[in-house]
Amino acid sequence: MVGEGALYEKLTTMFTSDHASVVSLNIFVALLCTCIVIGHLLEENRWINESITALLIGLCTGVLILFTTGGRSSHIMVFSEDLFFIYLLPPIIFNAGFQVKKKQFFRNFMTIMLFGAIGTLISFCIISLGAIHFFQKLDIGSLKIGDYLAIGAIFSATDSVCTLQVLNQDETPLLYSLVFGEGVVNDATSIVLFKAIQNFDLSHIDLTTALHLLGNFLYLFIASTVLGIFVGLFSAYIIKRLYFGKHSTDREVALMILMAYLSYMLAELFSFSAILTVFFCGILMSHYTWHNVTESSRITTKHTFATMSFIAEIFIFLYVGMDALDMEKWRFVSQSQKKSIGVSSLLLALILVGRAAFVFPLSFISNLSKKSQSEKIEFKQQVTIWWAGLMRGAVSIALAYNQFTRLGHTKLRENAIMITSTITVVLFSTVVFGLMTKPLVRLLLPSSKHIIISIPSPPSSPKSFSVPLLGNGEDVGGNGGTQRPSRLRTLLRIPSHGVHHYWRKFDDSFMRPVFGGRGFVPYVPGSPL
Amino acid sequence: MVGEGALYEKLTTMFTSDHASVVSLNIFVALLCTCIVIGHLLEENRWINESITALLIGLCTGVLILFTTGGRSSHIMVFSEDLFFIYLLPPIIFNAGFQVKKKQFFRNFMTIMLFGAIGTLISFCIISLGAIHFFQKLDIGSLKIGDYLAIGAIFSATDSVCTLQVLNQDETPLLYSLVFGEGVVNDATSIVLFKAIQNFDLSHIDLTTALHLLGNFLYLFIASTVLGIFVGLFSAYIIKRLYFGKHSTDREVALMILMAYLSYMLAELFSFSAILTVFFCGILMSHYTWHNVTESSRITTKHTFATMSFIAEIFIFLYVGMDALDMEKWRFVSQSQKKSIGVSSLLLALILVGRAAFVFPLSFISNLSKKSQSEKIEFKQQVTIWWAGLMRGAVSIALAYNQFTRLGHTKLRENAIMITSTITVVLFSTVVFGLMTKPLVRLLLPSSKHIIISIPSPPSSPKSFSVPLLGNGEDVGGNGGTQRPSRLRTLLRIPSHGVHHYWRKFDDSFMRPVFGGRGFVPYVPGSPL
Repeated sequence: MVGEGALYEKLTTMFTSDHASVVSLNIFVALLCTCIVIGHLLEENRWINESITALLIGLCTGVLILFTTGGRSSHIMVFSEDLFFIYLLPPIIFNAGFQVKKKQFFRNFMTIMLFGAIGTLISFCIISLGAIHFFQKLDIGSLKIGDYLAIGAIFSATDSVCTLQVLNQDETPLLYSLVFGEGVVNDATSIVLFKAIQNFDLSHIDLTTALHLLGNFLYLFIASTVLGIFVGLFSAYIIKRLYFGKHSTDREVALMILMAYLSYMLAELFSFSAILTVFFCGILMSHYTWHNVTESSRITTKHTFATMSFIAEIFIFLYVGMDALDMEKWRFVSQSQKKSIGVSSLLLALILVGRAAFVFPLSFISNLSKKSQSEKIEFKQQVTIWWAGLMRGAVSIALAYNQFTRLGHTKLRENAIMITSTITVVLFSTVVFGLMTKPLVRLLLPSSKHIIISIPSPPSSPKSFSVPLLGNGEDVGGNGGTQRPSRLRTLLRIPSHGVHHYWRKFDDSFMRPVFGGRGFVPYVPGSPL
Repeated sequence: MVGEGALYEKLTTMFTSDHASVVSLNIFVALLCTCIVIGHLLEENRWINESITALLIGLCTGVLILFTTGGRSSHIMVFSEDLFFIYLLPPIIFNAGFQVKKKQFFRNFMTIMLFGAIGTLISFCIISLGAIHFFQKLDIGSLKIGDYLAIGAIFSATDSVCTLQVLNQDETPLLYSLVFGEGVVNDATSIVLFKAIQNFDLSHIDLTTALHLLGNFLYLFIASTVLGIFVGLFSAYIIKRLYFGKHSTDREVALMILMAYLSYMLAELFSFSAILTVFFCGILMSHYTWHNVTESSRITTKHTFATMSFIAEIFIFLYVGMDALDMEKWRFVSQSQKKSIGVSSLLLALILVGRAAFVFPLSFISNLSKKSQSEKIEFKQQVTIWWAGLMRGAVSIALAYNQFTRLGHTKLRENAIMITSTITVVLFSTVVFGLMTKPLVRLLLPSSKHIIISIPSPPSSPKSFSVPLLGNGEDVGGNGGTQRPSRLRTLLRIPSHGVHHYWRKFDDSFMRPVFGGRGFVPYVPGSPL
C-alpha cells in the first residue's frame, strides 16, 4: 500500500477539502480506537491514566503528521471552540451529573459551593493580580486589563475530566464528591466569570461595576440551575405520563438523550452557564426520569451516557495533543524562548499558590460547621484536594483561544505567547501533575490501597438495576398514594441532616408522585420484570 | 417572553452566525422531541407512520419560519450532503445490518441480489431512457447525457427507511427480508451507479465503456463487502482477545460504535460503497462481536444502535420537510408551473413502470428456482414488494443536490426544475404512497391482520438476551473445543439448504472458535450471569 503521507497528499489533491476531512475523520476514529485499546491494556498500571495516554498519542501523531507534511502542519483539524463547547463538553458534564452519588453531593453541598464558587473567585483574583504584577516586568507586549482578568478566569478552570480518573467514587466518597462537585461548579464559575469579563467595559473598574459583575454572576448561576431542574423535571413528567415503554425502549432513550442536549442548548441560547444547566439536568434525570423507564432503557441510558462521555473525553485529549504542535503559534515563541518559559512557569506557580490560597482556609471554615469528626476534612485530604485540582485542561484551552485568537490565528506576539503558554501549562500540568497524582493519593490515603486494583464496581448512582428484583420489590405498591415503604425508610434513618430530612419528606410526598422516581414508577408493560 | 421570530432576529444580530446556529440547533432538537412524542401518540394509528409525521412537522415549521422571516427563508440549515452521508446515513444502515434476521437474509440472498442489483439496473435503464425520450418533448433546457443517466440513478434509489416502518419483521419475515435486503443493495447500487456515471466520460458510449462501467460496479461491490466483513471480524477478534468486559462495559460499547463508524469512513476513504460496507460490518458484528461482550453491553449496544438510527431517520425527514420550502429554487418553477408539474408526474410514472418492470419478471425467475410452494413469491406478495419500494427519500435528494447544484445554489433553470421535481417526487411518494401502504398491506396480506396492533416484540436478531439463561445455557461448555451443542443443532435441522449447511459447518468449526459468537463466548468476569 501507499505510505500514509503520500496517500494523504494524493487524496487531498484528488478531491477538495471534502476528501481531506474524510482522511482526518479516519485517522481520528482509528486513533480513538487505539487509545481505548491501549487504555485497556494499561488499566492496572499505577502511573498512567487514559487522559495522559490520549494526550501522548495525540502528540506523537502530531509529530508524525509534522514529518509527513514536511513541517507544514501538525494537526488534521483546527481546534474549534464550537466543536468543544457544543458537542464534546455536554455529554461529559451531563454524565457527571447523571452518575454522581446524589446523597454525598447534596450532603456536602455547602462545602462544594464554597470551594467551587468562592474558591474559584479567590484563585481568579490571585492569578489575575499575579499576572498584572509580574507580566509587566517580563515585558511580553501590551495586554489590557481585560486580558489579565481573562487570564485569571482561564487558569482558574480546573480539569474535572482528568481529576475524575484519579479518584474513585467507591473508595473515597467524601473526597470524590468534593473534588468532583467543585470541578463542575468551578468550570461553571470560570466560564461565567470569563463571559462577564468579556461583556463588561473594564476600562475603569469601580464599586458599581464590581457589584454589577457579582449580580450578573449570581443571576447566571441561579438561572442556569433553575433551567436545568426545569428540563429534568419536564422530561420525567412527560415520560411518566405517556408510558413510552409501552411502545418502544428506543423512544425513551432517544427522548432522554435529546432532552438532556436540549437543556444544554437552551442555556446556550439564553447565554446562561450551560455546564451548570446540563449538570443539574443530569442529576434530576437520574433521580426521577431514570426510574420511569423500562429496565432495558435504564441499562442502555446508563451505559450510553457513560460511553458518550468517555469518547468525548478521549477525543478532547487527543485533540489537544495534536493541536499542541501547530507550527504557526510557536513561531513567535522561538524568537523569545526565555520569556515564554518565564510566562509558563509563572502561570504554573500562580496556579499552585492560587489553589492553596483557598483550599486550606476554606477547608478550615467548612470544618468549623461540621460536628462529627468523620465529616471533617483532614489535612491529608486537604492536600489531596489541593493537588487533584491542579490540572488544567480543554476548558482553559478553549477559553484562551476565545480570548487571544480570532479564527484560530495568532497574529500578535503577546497573543501567540499566551496561547503557547496555555498549551504548555495544560500539557505540563496534565502529564506531570497527573502522573504524580495516583502515587500521591496512595501515599496520603493508604486506606484505599488494598482495594485499588480490584475490579471496578459499576459507577453506581443509578444503582438499582444490579439487584432489579430488590430495587423494584418496593416499587409496585407505591404507584398511588401509599407511602409506606418510604416512610419506613425515613424512620429507619436517623434524621441528623435537617435540610436533607425535609427534602426527603417533600420529595416523597409531592415530587415523586408527580414526577416518578424510585418508589413511584408506573407499571410498564414492556419491562422485562 | 419575546416571540420566536423576534427572538431569532435579536439573537442573530446580537452575535454573528455562531448564535444563529445555536438557535437552529435548539429548534431542531425541540422538533425532534416533538416528533418522537407525536409518533408515540400516533403509534396505533393505521395510516400515519413516523416518517410522515416528521416530514409534515418539517413542512409546517418551514411555513412558520417563512412567515416569521417575512418570506426570506424557510430552512434553518441548508441541506448538506456531508451531514447526510457522513453522519446520518451510517447509523441507519449499520443498525439495519445489525438487527436484520440473518438466516432469512442469507436464505434469500440470491433473490435479494437479483432484485437489488439487476432490478435497480433495469429500473435505472427505464427511467433514464424514459427521461431522454420525454424530457426533450417538454423542452426544459439543455440536459446532457450524463444528467439523464444521473436522473436514472437518482430515481432508482428506494427509501429503505420509510419501507421498514411499514412491514413487520415478525409478521411477514419473507417479505420483510426481501424488501429490506433489496433496499440496502438498491441504495448501494444506485450510489455506485451514480459515482460511476460521474467519473466516466459519457460523451460517446460504446461497448468498452459499458463493460468498463460494469467492471467498476462489480469491483466496488465486492471490495465494499470484503472491507465490511474484514472490519467486523477484526472488531470481534480484538474484543474476544482482550476481554474488555473485565474492566469496563463502556470501553466495549465505545469500541463497537467506533469500529462500525470506522468501517464506513474507510470505505468512503477508498471511494467504495460505504453503505454496503457498514451493512456487512453490522451483520458480522451482530453475528460475532455482539456475543463476545458482557450482558449489559449487549443490551446497551442493541438499543443504542436502534436509538441512533431512529434519531437519524427522524432528523432526515424533518430536514427534507424543512428544506422543501426553500424559496430560491422555486423561483424558476413559478415561471413554468406546467412544465414542472409535467416533469414530476412523468418521473412518478417512470418510477411506477420502472419498478413494475423488474419486480414481476424477476419474481418469476426467482420462483423458478424454488422447489417448495412456501418459498415462492405469490402474486399478492409481488404487488406488495412493488408498492413498498415506490417511496423515494433522502438518498434521492442528496444525489440530486450533488448532481444539479454546486454549494446548494440553483442558478440554471433546468437544474432548479430538476431539484424541485426531486423534492416533489419525494414528498408525494412518501406521503401519498406511504399513507396507502399500511392499508394496502393489510388488504393484500390479511393473515397478518390480527397481530398488527399487538405490542411490537423487540427487534430480534440479537435475540438471546430476552431469555438470557436459555441463550447462554449452551454457551458455557462451548469455550474450548467441544462442539456438541452446535452439532446437535445441525443434526436436528434438515439440511435442505446446501450452502447454508456448509456455511454452518465452517462457521462452527473455524470461524466461531477464532472470532467468538454464540456458543464460543469467553468467560467474562463482569457479566451479570
